[in-house]
Amino acid sequence: MASLLREIVIDCEDPERVGRFWASVLEWPLVESESGFYWLSSTGDYTAAPPLLVFVPVPESKAGKNRLHIDLNPSGCDQAEELERLLSLGARQVDVGQVDVAWVVLADPEGNEFCLLGRRVDA
Amino acid sequence: MASLLREIVIDCEDPERVGRFWASVLEWPLVESESGFYWLSSTGDYTAAPPLLVFVPVPESKAGKNRLHIDLNPSGCDQAEELERLLSLGARQVDVGQVDVAWVVLADPEGNEFCLLGRRVDA
Repeated sequence: MASLLREIVIDCEDPERVGRFWASVLEWPLVESESGFYWLSSTGDYTAAPPLLVFVPVPESKAGKNRLHIDLNPSGCDQAEELERLLSLGARQVDVGQVDVAWVVLADPEGNEFCLLGRRVDA
Repeated sequence: MASLLREIVIDCEDPERVGRFWASVLEWPLVESESGFYWLSSTGDYTAAPPLLVFVPVPESKAGKNRLHIDLNPSGCDQAEELERLLSLGARQVDVGQVDVAWVVLADPEGNEFCLLGRRVDA
């Protein structure tokens, strides 16, 4: 008896735009629900291994630095190569006060902060 | 060449307190790093299947509703039983404007919103 971490839900002004960005980042297929939201899993199937990413519409804009954020590993390439790819997808580098760190602080198209770690994963 | 979703990072005033709560929620072992933060994985091993949850200290308090939140499935019990357990661990029910929904909106000890879904998973 416990809880299973099932989904990470991201409030969006434009769920399709933010969903498309993260679909490209993770190379996961984007699925549009019948209820006006979008979601991703590694296979495009709802029963895929968690977590799913779910993009839901909200009326309000992002305000201030997010309290939760996602960290990514470069997969099959090094950090510099993946950084170049993320920037080409619409990410931008942001300053949240980091100084000399091994990761790169970025933001998605609606300003949600995330980090690209230095450690490469070949999976 | 892509990015792998590695970690969910949660800014905390008291990383140990918030980490202990989530360790109990997920029944994952809590690990204290040498650098003043705490983290969880399903096995307590850094190489466990992602995502890890990472609790980092920040000077500022939470302000406003989080833009990202976690959704949980009850595992091995129904929603009502798991809700009772979560409340006993220190979660509290919160009103973020939800009306008649199948999930329960809760907050962790520092007010981070999360949802307990209705769908039970026997895993």
